[in-house]
Amino acid sequence: MTDVTFAFDDNEYLPAVAQDAESGEVLMLAYVTEAALEKTRETGYAHYYSRSRDELWKKGGTSGHTQEIEEIRVDCDGDALLYRIDQSGGACHTGYESCFYRTLDGEDVGEKVFDPDDVY
Amino acid sequence: MTDVTFAFDDNEYLPAVAQDAESGEVLMLAYVTEAALEKTRETGYAHYYSRSRDELWKKGGTSGHTQEIEEIRVDCDGDALLYRIDQSGGACHTGYESCFYRTLDGEDVGEKVFDPDDVY
Repeated sequence: MTDVTFAFDDNEYLPAVAQDAESGEVLMLAYVTEAALEKTRETGYAHYYSRSRDELWKKGGTSGHTQEIEEIRVDCDGDALLYRIDQSGGACHTGYESCFYRTLDGEDVGEKVFDPDDVY
Repeated sequence: MTDVTFAFDDNEYLPAVAQDAESGEVLMLAYVTEAALEKTRETGYAHYYSRSRDELWKKGGTSGHTQEIEEIRVDCDGDALLYRIDQSGGACHTGYESCFYRTLDGEDVGEKVFDPDDVY
C-alpha cells in the first residue's frame, strides 16, 4: 500500500499520536491495527483499535467528536504513527481538548471544551 | 511521587511522546520505565528505555542532541506521557529534526538539521 514498512509490535499494534494539525496541540495517544489504519485511510477519519474492548473503533463514533485526517506520518523506524487531524469538539472523554491536560504533578493545564454529561 | 497514577503496560513500559515546547512539532515516540521517568525528573533531561538494547538511555548521550524538559504531562488514563522539551540539534538519528519526517506515502516532509555522518 505504500513504500513505508511498518513495525507492528508483537500484538500487531502501532501507537498513533493524534495532533491538531493547526494548533500543534498533542491530543491523545491510542493504538492502531493494520485494519484500523486501513479504515482511517479509506474514510479520512481517525480509527483506532481498543486494546481493552478488543475492537476497531471510529473516534467520535459515540460523541460526534471525530478527527478528520489532514496527513498521516510515520516515524523513522516505522513503529509509530502521527495523525495530523482536524478535531471536532474535544479529543478527551473528560471534556478536555487534549487527553494530556495534567502535568506529572497533577496540575491542570488543559482547556475544557465540552461537558461530558451532555455528550455521553 | 505524584498524585497521578500510571498505567505501565505488561512490560512495565509507558510510551512517551516528545514535543518541541516552542514550535509544537512532534519529534519522536519512545518508551520509559519508572526508572527512566525518575531519571528524567531528577536531571531535567529526557531519558528513555530502549526495548531492543534493554537499557535506560539519555537522549543525546552520544550525539549531544539532548532534550531539556520544560514540562511533563500525563494523559487521562495514565498510560502515556508527553515530554514538552527544548531539543538541541535534531531528535532523529537520520539528521531530521523530527522522526516523523515522512508521510504514509513516503513523501519527505521533514527538515534536515544535521548530517548524521558528522555526529555518529
